[in-house]
Amino acid sequence: MLKSLQSDILHDADSNDLKVIIISAEGPVFSSGHDLKELTEEQGCDYHAEVFQTCSKVMMLIRNHPVPVIAMVNGLATAAGCQLVASCDIAVASDKSSFATPGVNIGLFCSTPGVALARAVPRKVALEMLFTGEPISAQQALLHGLLSKVVPEAELQEETMRIARKIASLSRPVVSLGKATFYKQLPQDLGTAYYLTSQAMVDNLALRDGQEGITAFLQKRKPIWSHEPA
Amino acid sequence: MLKSLQSDILHDADSNDLKVIIISAEGPVFSSGHDLKELTEEQGCDYHAEVFQTCSKVMMLIRNHPVPVIAMVNGLATAAGCQLVASCDIAVASDKSSFATPGVNIGLFCSTPGVALARAVPRKVALEMLFTGEPISAQQALLHGLLSKVVPEAELQEETMRIARKIASLSRPVVSLGKATFYKQLPQDLGTAYYLTSQAMVDNLALRDGQEGITAFLQKRKPIWSHEPA
Amino acid sequence: MLKSLQSDILHDADSNDLKVIIISAEGPVFSSGHDLKELTEEQGCDYHAEVFQTCSKVMMLIRNHPVPVIAMVNGLATAAGCQLVASCDIAVASDKSSFATPGVNIGLFCSTPGVALARAVPRKVALEMLFTGEPISAQQALLHGLLSKVVPEAELQEETMRIARKIASLSRPVVSLGKATFYKQLPQDLGTAYYLTSQAMVDNLALRDGQEGITAFLQKRKPIWSHEPA
Repeated sequence: MLKSLQSDILHDADSNDLKVIIISAEGPVFSSGHDLKELTEEQGCDYHAEVFQTCSKVMMLIRNHPVPVIAMVNGLATAAGCQLVASCDIAVASDKSSFATPGVNIGLFCSTPGVALARAVPRKVALEMLFTGEPISAQQALLHGLLSKVVPEAELQEETMRIARKIASLSRPVVSLGKATFYKQLPQDLGTAYYLTSQAMVDNLALRDGQEGITAFLQKRKPIWSHEPA
Repeated sequence: MLKSLQSDILHDADSNDLKVIIISAEGPVFSSGHDLKELTEEQGCDYHAEVFQTCSKVMMLIRNHPVPVIAMVNGLATAAGCQLVASCDIAVASDKSSFATPGVNIGLFCSTPGVALARAVPRKVALEMLFTGEPISAQQALLHGLLSKVVPEAELQEETMRIARKIASLSRPVVSLGKATFYKQLPQDLGTAYYLTSQAMVDNLALRDGQEGITAFLQKRKPIWSHEPA
Repeated sequence: MLKSLQSDILHDADSNDLKVIIISAEGPVFSSGHDLKELTEEQGCDYHAEVFQTCSKVMMLIRNHPVPVIAMVNGLATAAGCQLVASCDIAVASDKSSFATPGVNIGLFCSTPGVALARAVPRKVALEMLFTGEPISAQQALLHGLLSKVVPEAELQEETMRIARKIASLSRPVVSLGKATFYKQLPQDLGTAYYLTSQAMVDNLALRDGQEGITAFLQKRKPIWSHEPA
C-alpha cells in the first residue's frame, strides 16, 4: 500500500501538466494506518524497520514534492492515516470525519504519526491524542491546525476541487519554488530564514512567469503562464 | 514548595505501579508562583539563581518523567503556576479557571514561565500575556493550546480521573517509551525525527507488551499487559 | 516607504520616554505590501535583492526593538502588509479586517511574508493562504494566532490604546529585558532556554525597578519606576 502510494505520488512528478495532487479514499475510512499483520513477531525487526522507513519516506515525499498535496478526508483517519493527513500541505475534511492516534491501546505508541501531528497541532493536543488514543472531531482538528477546512459531506468534493483548480490555475514553477522555500526556511532562525527567502524572491522574479505576472498586473490583464522552469 | 513538589514527582517514579501523575491544588488558587519574599535584595543573587534553577529543574522533571503528568486546575494559575500548567503533558481545567503571567506588573518579567508558555501557545498570545500581565480565561487557554480540556467545575475531578484511568489501563513501558520519544523528536528536523521514531517503533514492537497488544488485537481479545520494561 | 518605516521605528529608540510603538494606517487598507513597479525586469535583480533585504531588516528591527511594537489594523493587510502584522509583538484588528498572502496570483510567491506567517499560525493555515492567495477574516486570524485581539471598528483605537497605556505604565528596562529574553530563548532547546531565562530573572531582580516592584508589592503600595537601565 505504501509502495503503491509512493509510486502514485511520484507519477508524472516532473511533468509541467501536474499542478496539484489530491489524496482521497473510498468508503467510510480515510485510512487506519499500518496493517498489523505486518508487525507481528514472526515478521522480525528488520522487516518492521523497513515498514516504518518506507512510511517515513512517503511522508517526506509529500513535503519534498514539487506540487501541493491535498488530503480530502471523509471519515476516520487513524494512526499512520492521521499522519498522512498531517503530512499533506492542505487538508479538507467533511464534518463527519474524525482523527486519532490510538496505537497506545494496542501497545504500539503512535511515535511516527506523532512526528507529523506535533508539527501540525499544539503540543498538549498532540499529547492527549497520543496518550489516550481518543479521537478528535473534524471541528476540533480545524481549530487546532490539523485541517485547513471543514465542510458538510455533500460539499467535500466541490470545495476540495475548488482549491485544487485554483492552484492548477497558477504558475507551476512559482508554486513549486514557493513550496520548497517554505519548508526550507521553516526550521531556520529568523535571520537565516529571511536570507533564504529574500534570495528566493529574487529568483522568483527572474522566472519568466514571475515577470509575466507582474507585467500582467500592471497592464490590468490576466497573466498567461509559460510554466517554464528556472 | 518546589523541593516538596520535586520529591513528590520523583516518588516511586521507577515503580511499575505508577502509571500517571495528577498535580492539583486546594482552594481557589491553583498556584500563584514564587514566594516574593524569597526574591528580595536581602536574599542575594546567588539565592535568586538557586530558586530559578530549582524551578526549572522541576519543570524539566515533568517532561523527563517516565509517566504522563496531568495538571488538574480549578482556579487561578499565575506566573510559575501558569508555567507549571504549561509544563504538564496534559492539562484539564474547570471553566472558572484563568491563567496569567503578571510579573511585569511588579517589575519582574515572567521570563522563565515564558519558556513553557511559548512552547504551548502561539507567540502573539504568549507575548500579550507577558507584556500586559492580563489573565486569559480557561476557554481562551483551550483555544490556544494551553489546556487539553475545559469542563464545568462539578465535572473536573471526574473528567481528569477518566483520562488518568484510561492512561493507567495502558502498558507503562509503551507509554513511557512514547513520551520520551515524543519530546526527543520534537526539536529535530523531519528526517532526523523520522529516523528516531522509526527506531522507537521497532523497539516498541520488541517489547513484550508491544507483541501482546498486537496479538490480542488480531485475536479480538483484550490485551493483558506485563508492564515488563525493555 | 520601508526606509521611512525603518527610520520611524528607530526614532528615539533609546529614549526612556519611549515605552511602546503602534503601527497603524489611514484609509481602508492597512498595507498591501511591495510596490510592484519596483519589481519589474527593468529594475534588475540587484535592486530586487536590495528591496527584500531592506524589508527583512525592517521586520527584524521590530523584533530586536527594545519596546513592544503593536500593529493596529483596520482593513486589508496583504503580502508584506500581512508580514508586518505577523512580525509585530502584539496585533489588534477591527472585525472588518482581513489578511492574505496573494503573491502567487501574480506569479510572485509570498516567500518572505511566509517567514513571519509560519511563525505566527499553524503550518496548514499558512500553506493554504500561500498556495491559494485567499484572504482569511479577522476572526480566523485571531483563532489561528495571527492576531492578539479583534474588536468592532468603533473600539479599535480605544482597545489598542488601552493595551499601549498599560505597557507604558510599566518599567521600560523590565519590559525590554523581558522582550529580548523571550525571543532569545524561543529557538533553544528546553535546557538552554531555562538556563538563559533563569539568568535573566536574576538580572531582572538586580534592576532597580525589579527591587522597587517587589518592595512595593510587599508594602502593598504602587511601585514608582525609575526606568534606570541595567
